[in-house]
Amino acid sequence: MSTLKRPYGIAVAQLGPIHLADSRAAVVKRLIELLRESKSRGAKFVVFPELALTTFFPRYWMTEEEAVERFFERSMPGPETKPLFDLAAEFGIGFYLGYAELTPDGRRFNTAILTDEKAKIVGRYRKIHLPGHSHHIETAPFQHLEKKFFEVGNEGFKVWDALGARIGMCICNDRRWAETYRVMGLQSAEIVALGYNTPSWNIHWNEPPHLRMFHHLLSLQGNAYQNGIWVAAAAKCGKEDGFHMIGGSAIVAPTGEITAQAQSEEDELIFTSADLSIGETFREHVFNFAKHRRPEHYKLIVERTGAGAPLGTAPD
Amino acid sequence: MSTLKRPYGIAVAQLGPIHLADSRAAVVKRLIELLRESKSRGAKFVVFPELALTTFFPRYWMTEEEAVERFFERSMPGPETKPLFDLAAEFGIGFYLGYAELTPDGRRFNTAILTDEKAKIVGRYRKIHLPGHSHHIETAPFQHLEKKFFEVGNEGFKVWDALGARIGMCICNDRRWAETYRVMGLQSAEIVALGYNTPSWNIHWNEPPHLRMFHHLLSLQGNAYQNGIWVAAAAKCGKEDGFHMIGGSAIVAPTGEITAQAQSEEDELIFTSADLSIGETFREHVFNFAKHRRPEHYKLIVERTGAGAPLGTAPD
Repeated sequence: MSTLKRPYGIAVAQLGPIHLADSRAAVVKRLIELLRESKSRGAKFVVFPELALTTFFPRYWMTEEEAVERFFERSMPGPETKPLFDLAAEFGIGFYLGYAELTPDGRRFNTAILTDEKAKIVGRYRKIHLPGHSHHIETAPFQHLEKKFFEVGNEGFKVWDALGARIGMCICNDRRWAETYRVMGLQSAEIVALGYNTPSWNIHWNEPPHLRMFHHLLSLQGNAYQNGIWVAAAAKCGKEDGFHMIGGSAIVAPTGEITAQAQSEEDELIFTSADLSIGETFREHVFNFAKHRRPEHYKLIVERTGAGAPLGTAPD
Repeated sequence: MSTLKRPYGIAVAQLGPIHLADSRAAVVKRLIELLRESKSRGAKFVVFPELALTTFFPRYWMTEEEAVERFFERSMPGPETKPLFDLAAEFGIGFYLGYAELTPDGRRFNTAILTDEKAKIVGRYRKIHLPGHSHHIETAPFQHLEKKFFEVGNEGFKVWDALGARIGMCICNDRRWAETYRVMGLQSAEIVALGYNTPSWNIHWNEPPHLRMFHHLLSLQGNAYQNGIWVAAAAKCGKEDGFHMIGGSAIVAPTGEITAQAQSEEDELIFTSADLSIGETFREHVFNFAKHRRPEHYKLIVERTGAGAPLGTAPD
């Protein structure tokens, strides 16, 4: 018998590569397989990756129109994704799913949704920290064109009371920014879910590739701890048509400890019976924001965007 | 011959225990010994701990007047500390030193200073994130009375151009708060120095003691990476009159990697010839704040102190 105080089944469904030639129907079959495994483990909530329905297309130079045609979703669920929603409703499992969103008025976002036990969409997050560039880097072995294909998310960092917990969402590069988690922590988030596609090679400088995995895990661990939250992170990984991305899907406790981590670069489910009460303990003591935070000294965080000169050194 | 682009000698001078019976003169002798070792290693800058001149007195219940009488400094340098300043000036080495500051008008702060090559005080930081409590917890084996003995720092998180680098300061519990580093990162800090006294046991709940060291290092590593800065952290550690505090003094690169870590719980010098150019690389690419930060979505960080309810979920 478990002695956890508030046990909560979280599954993270890592995806191996999706190649250009793979159909959405084939991908959804894989998602459904992972959903079945989530059910068998006792999950209430399963996290799928960022842009989970297609290859990581921002690596390719093309026009926005071409990208929309091949890689964006006009509705969610759509005809190909509806079977996933139907089975999730049958199982009573909620999920996080990332996809490229085309709005009715033609805007493009890198988006994730949150569904409840009935597979109703109850939350939507549009990626705010878009990495990469918008121009064609001729000399690079691949591109990272998120700033070309997507607008910056326009709905902020929100959290939702759903599936018996308070859940926030972010996407990929957001996980490297402390502000992402703090804004959700200030809304008493208990779980933050995220998906990612992270190339193993940095096209901007000769970064040692082992650092990519280290920085991924460090970002999850440091921010889970500093906010007293569970973080559940799902990779799409392995070699997509020859372009390698890191795995390392992980579930991280509010202690900053990794409680589950993927072993492969293929489709793989990881699971933790997460004790949500651990987060409460951290948020009551060391990270009791009301007792310890001093926003009067944080103003620069919203007053400046880029790094600049020192503030005056005279006493306030 | 070193191939580092901007080599910069950083030393961290960990202190073993200072007992109630130890005189300031005896402590300053130890600081001077560590300063000599810093010189022999080629340091430009050496970091001493928080409250480096006395035992960690906030563990004891006493009146503010008693604390002031025994543990606070009325001037810096004072008669006991002047030999340290004199030798630092002779060596041309700057330092960070933490101490309990009594101001001329009777205010009390947990303070650190930064000196230049001539041992002139060029920077002062007064601790903002005071941990612990202000009342007597009768049942606890020791107290953590920083909120009783100190006011919250009133000068913000600043950085100084000194010793050939841009240097910021914080103290102990500040290192667990992402805002600390971000406010200095937004002023283009290259090095953040800090001292700490961290009890191995948490008096508020039965936290496994191994987590104390893990959280210390995780906080340094995660925030060094997320801001592209070097972090140099000096412990006072070991058993002070029977009360154990963690060691783990460390120098952390902007990669988040630990480049030097203390091995003992005694006086011990660690050193890194830090390449300041690594930070530039990170701040130019993944943490190019101007390109990637979105302060319009960070407002809650300054608008709220404590954790609260979810923001509305309707689109902005």
